[in-house]
Amino acid sequence: MSKTKIGIINVTGYAGVELARLLHQHPEVELTCVTGRSAAGQKLGAVFPHLSQIDLTVAAKLGEVDVAFSAMPHKESAEVILPLVKAGIKIVDISADFRLKDAGEYPRWYGFDHPAPELLSKAVYGLPELYRQQISSAQIVANPGCYPTAAILALAPAIKAGIIQPDIIIDSKSGVSGTGRSLSLTTHFSEVNEDVAAYALSGHRHLPEITQELKFLGLKEASVTFVPHLIPMTRGILTTAYASPVAGKIAGGEKGKTELRKLYLDFYQDEPFVSVTESPPHTKHTWGNNLCLIYPTIDGRTGRLIVISCLDNLVKGAAGQAIQNMNLMLGLPETTGLESIAIYP
Amino acid sequence: MSKTKIGIINVTGYAGVELARLLHQHPEVELTCVTGRSAAGQKLGAVFPHLSQIDLTVAAKLGEVDVAFSAMPHKESAEVILPLVKAGIKIVDISADFRLKDAGEYPRWYGFDHPAPELLSKAVYGLPELYRQQISSAQIVANPGCYPTAAILALAPAIKAGIIQPDIIIDSKSGVSGTGRSLSLTTHFSEVNEDVAAYALSGHRHLPEITQELKFLGLKEASVTFVPHLIPMTRGILTTAYASPVAGKIAGGEKGKTELRKLYLDFYQDEPFVSVTESPPHTKHTWGNNLCLIYPTIDGRTGRLIVISCLDNLVKGAAGQAIQNMNLMLGLPETTGLESIAIYP
Amino acid sequence: MSKTKIGIINVTGYAGVELARLLHQHPEVELTCVTGRSAAGQKLGAVFPHLSQIDLTVAAKLGEVDVAFSAMPHKESAEVILPLVKAGIKIVDISADFRLKDAGEYPRWYGFDHPAPELLSKAVYGLPELYRQQISSAQIVANPGCYPTAAILALAPAIKAGIIQPDIIIDSKSGVSGTGRSLSLTTHFSEVNEDVAAYALSGHRHLPEITQELKFLGLKEASVTFVPHLIPMTRGILTTAYASPVAGKIAGGEKGKTELRKLYLDFYQDEPFVSVTESPPHTKHTWGNNLCLIYPTIDGRTGRLIVISCLDNLVKGAAGQAIQNMNLMLGLPETTGLESIAIYP
Amino acid sequence: MSKTKIGIINVTGYAGVELARLLHQHPEVELTCVTGRSAAGQKLGAVFPHLSQIDLTVAAKLGEVDVAFSAMPHKESAEVILPLVKAGIKIVDISADFRLKDAGEYPRWYGFDHPAPELLSKAVYGLPELYRQQISSAQIVANPGCYPTAAILALAPAIKAGIIQPDIIIDSKSGVSGTGRSLSLTTHFSEVNEDVAAYALSGHRHLPEITQELKFLGLKEASVTFVPHLIPMTRGILTTAYASPVAGKIAGGEKGKTELRKLYLDFYQDEPFVSVTESPPHTKHTWGNNLCLIYPTIDGRTGRLIVISCLDNLVKGAAGQAIQNMNLMLGLPETTGLESIAIYP
Repeated sequence: MSKTKIGIINVTGYAGVELARLLHQHPEVELTCVTGRSAAGQKLGAVFPHLSQIDLTVAAKLGEVDVAFSAMPHKESAEVILPLVKAGIKIVDISADFRLKDAGEYPRWYGFDHPAPELLSKAVYGLPELYRQQISSAQIVANPGCYPTAAILALAPAIKAGIIQPDIIIDSKSGVSGTGRSLSLTTHFSEVNEDVAAYALSGHRHLPEITQELKFLGLKEASVTFVPHLIPMTRGILTTAYASPVAGKIAGGEKGKTELRKLYLDFYQDEPFVSVTESPPHTKHTWGNNLCLIYPTIDGRTGRLIVISCLDNLVKGAAGQAIQNMNLMLGLPETTGLESIAIYP
Repeated sequence: MSKTKIGIINVTGYAGVELARLLHQHPEVELTCVTGRSAAGQKLGAVFPHLSQIDLTVAAKLGEVDVAFSAMPHKESAEVILPLVKAGIKIVDISADFRLKDAGEYPRWYGFDHPAPELLSKAVYGLPELYRQQISSAQIVANPGCYPTAAILALAPAIKAGIIQPDIIIDSKSGVSGTGRSLSLTTHFSEVNEDVAAYALSGHRHLPEITQELKFLGLKEASVTFVPHLIPMTRGILTTAYASPVAGKIAGGEKGKTELRKLYLDFYQDEPFVSVTESPPHTKHTWGNNLCLIYPTIDGRTGRLIVISCLDNLVKGAAGQAIQNMNLMLGLPETTGLESIAIYP
Repeated sequence: MSKTKIGIINVTGYAGVELARLLHQHPEVELTCVTGRSAAGQKLGAVFPHLSQIDLTVAAKLGEVDVAFSAMPHKESAEVILPLVKAGIKIVDISADFRLKDAGEYPRWYGFDHPAPELLSKAVYGLPELYRQQISSAQIVANPGCYPTAAILALAPAIKAGIIQPDIIIDSKSGVSGTGRSLSLTTHFSEVNEDVAAYALSGHRHLPEITQELKFLGLKEASVTFVPHLIPMTRGILTTAYASPVAGKIAGGEKGKTELRKLYLDFYQDEPFVSVTESPPHTKHTWGNNLCLIYPTIDGRTGRLIVISCLDNLVKGAAGQAIQNMNLMLGLPETTGLESIAIYP
Repeated sequence: MSKTKIGIINVTGYAGVELARLLHQHPEVELTCVTGRSAAGQKLGAVFPHLSQIDLTVAAKLGEVDVAFSAMPHKESAEVILPLVKAGIKIVDISADFRLKDAGEYPRWYGFDHPAPELLSKAVYGLPELYRQQISSAQIVANPGCYPTAAILALAPAIKAGIIQPDIIIDSKSGVSGTGRSLSLTTHFSEVNEDVAAYALSGHRHLPEITQELKFLGLKEASVTFVPHLIPMTRGILTTAYASPVAGKIAGGEKGKTELRKLYLDFYQDEPFVSVTESPPHTKHTWGNNLCLIYPTIDGRTGRLIVISCLDNLVKGAAGQAIQNMNLMLGLPETTGLESIAIYP
């Protein structure tokens, strides 16, 4: 029996090549087509030497596939996806074009009117830890952003349990690959190396996505401050989330820490790609794999909850999670092709 | 007339060599003696080739000097300083041994009983922006920690003006040199490179120092959560501080941002080493010099104050500030020997 | 049928954990035992969080296994291996203890008398591209050093073809993980970051290993200068080798380049882990996998041969090649468990 | 008396801003004008925050100055310089436009016909260690390239003494800032970090410059192979040069090493910015200052000379050397404004 055919639209960014790497190594599907405008006509291995083992030529247009991953930029992604939806192809969209449920957010945060607002409710937000069931039967899965994946997984158990107040601070630190392969001074080695800075203080595009999901989890009047920082490394996001406890809902001191830890362990006990750690996690321990590590604790002096999460922004934060979603959509074991151990050091 | 004679006790750490670099280039003083146990008897340039221009031999014991900088570890620093105090020598202590006013904090945070609690009230906390007058006439100046310098300067104007509530979150990101030159897995290149993690979640030693000073600034019942993170760069600290506004004390929206910015500009208008920036600052813009850059803003959606500060942890966070203090103690212009521009890129 | 049982002696260095990562993912063998002195009694995942998926406790002593990898330091490795040899266990030794054929070299380069010189001729140098046949039937395989692997593979085709003179210069650039996980100022992040330097100019221990193999390949009176350099990255070795052509043996100009390239392509045409590239290779394109990339060319102005090779020092330069050897020793397809694509970026 | 007025043409590259930093701190001259096309009209500190202390607006056109530094790209530099030459202004050209004496080399290496070949013989190659006298009375000084500075200083004493043969290999490792501030994938953080590769194997533009100077030093039929490598750091060049000794001209073994070292010490004994080191030098020990460190030795096994040199490519390799030249041209002490110690770590 022939394997399920998979295509990648716009393979030439970092999410695209990471999809190619992982899909080529996936035992149950076959990567049959990759597209890319500037590279069309070239062998994939000529553009990306590390992919020389994949015998594909970059195409200008998607061929016949069963599942398509879109790694197009926002707005263009929706445009390329719409005809595929009509053709009945299953879609995992790496862009933000189907993440927000409220079409009115697109002009504000992304500067365009959504071309198919009626599809927003049909698309499923591709965070398997929250929407596994829906993903399994979805045609369009909106793969979450890297920051939102880390932030939502860090906060979900606490919000669901009703133990934190809606005032939440999310301080995130990201490696440079999260900003993509496009050229800008922001990603010039000499500018980033030996540097750290906050950015997007007037509002990062991942904020409405985070807020939407925290509300769905039960947070009323979410009052979220999100500050991303760029740090001199290639891969990895570490998020430190701060929240005030709801009085009477969680004990103080060591007892509270133990309760909190148990809450998180229970919440994620069956999750193959979330691990609740015993000490503050390191992004290095997720380098190249699909894990999200989470460490919940309580500040002994102030009673404040601190939850730290980390992941590889190109795997659990992009291509790996996309494949996790595809596995669910195809009825495959969720971990297929994603079992690899992080590469350390 | 001969120049003021300066000695460095324990030159062999990163703060020590940075003191040597800056003092050698200082036009009004003369570095006449450097000590160090393991390196005693060797030429300074043999141990640290970048200091070959300084013609000194590392001594086992301090010679005759007018001012001594102690870069000894805590506890040992107090021990070596006490006889110097009796001898009337002016001291700038880079260690934490004279930073905390309450002797009772030393056993708790540093694990030793302070040998001279009576001196704690005489020692002046060496943050010139807050204690310029007292530093000028002090015999012992306790040079602030790197994290506290960034945090206190970020928050001082807001606290003084009474516009923020006592619940404060300080999320700091530090380069590796802040943890010193001692060997540990934590500072092994292969472990730190391509990694970020939080540490000291049960309480970093710089927390009581920060809390003490925020209280002196007027914050009642300070409820400070401080989470330091180690990031893969050598120099630099960036601190992102979050606080809730006191109702009615600061406007919302753009008006509030403007008011806040004016408040900070006014507060620091005469400060030679604090610069209020127009956009989020980069540690790279302080690389090697004594500036602290501060960017205060208001989160438009939540009304929360966000203040970002950054500095070079070995200069304004250690050796540079120590020399700034020395200048004040000697009646020299405060900027003497500290005017150099940051090295970019 | 039960899988072949594998043990790792001294799992706690970088080669050891990389072996554990790769062996755990190997479909045909089972990692049943890992030893380590300091970590004995602890869960492997407690010492190395990225290995949490491996359910093993670090043992003080090796249990019953079919194949043992020794990642002990030199001298100690031979001591621990000798009883295993007697017990008939197959061994892949990551240390240098069985690499040199001449026992007299050990006192000179490694400072100890070899405890079992009679085994040196039985042990096979584990470079499958040169010794595939012998490895298949060996009991002891001496896994090559990281620098020698890159250097020998770069030069083998040219030497075999008799086209270069014996005066060879090998200029190598290595990431920091090659120096191991032990603590030293040399590997302190703040010392290595933003730095490059040559080291071991009076003779690196990998030199006799390189020279031995180049002679076996046919180089008479090998006159090799080898200068290793440490550069600020974690993984990767890049070697630039320079040699003068033998007159009349290779054309000049573009014709010579083409001939040379064909020579290399032919030599390595059946090799699964050597790839002759069309442009100067990047270590990044081997990050985490078992490939050695080689680019041979001729300096158009001087006629000199330049061959550049690169690999991941912990994979093809250590653990990956060790498993490649194990596959051969067990009669498994050579690429089993080693097919993964390099992780980029 | 008013200070000498200095202008920088095209301040917006890395060499340009480094000139601005150093000239602002120079006690004997005044930086009065900086030009730059894209940034014209903006405050220098708005474009480069680390230069906020310099109160200048970027101009579109050079104002009245006594000395002009051109940091324009090649070809454009000559065009902008020619009218200044006629106006009698002293020029230090950071570009390559006046480095090569043979106008015929420009079409071949730089792709343009030199607009003023008659000036090539009047321009002086700005390596003070070789051309101090001529620089003092020159109107146009051609500031050397970063690679040539390191390579020529490494080889000059040996060539002058006639102890090496003309077959020379120069293997250089450079930080990323050497390739400039322009955007390209080559300098994208995610591409350079954790990577090393050779480049320009078909001939780097600095090769004719190196060859020209080695010939002037007395090397007949120079047969130079030059291979530059890009490594993941911002500043610094390390060059490892290899050459065969002329029989009978230098002793072998330890005696030869001592003789060689003495030769180098003598050659550079009066040089303020060249230091002959006792062990292989680190680029880190020149970070931010104008030193070139040189370590000459002999490979004990092959008798081959190995000379390692390093410097900061933006200081001694560009802006610092340019100011050293300016000092000579103005009759100032050569070290004025360039005395600062390297910043470590």
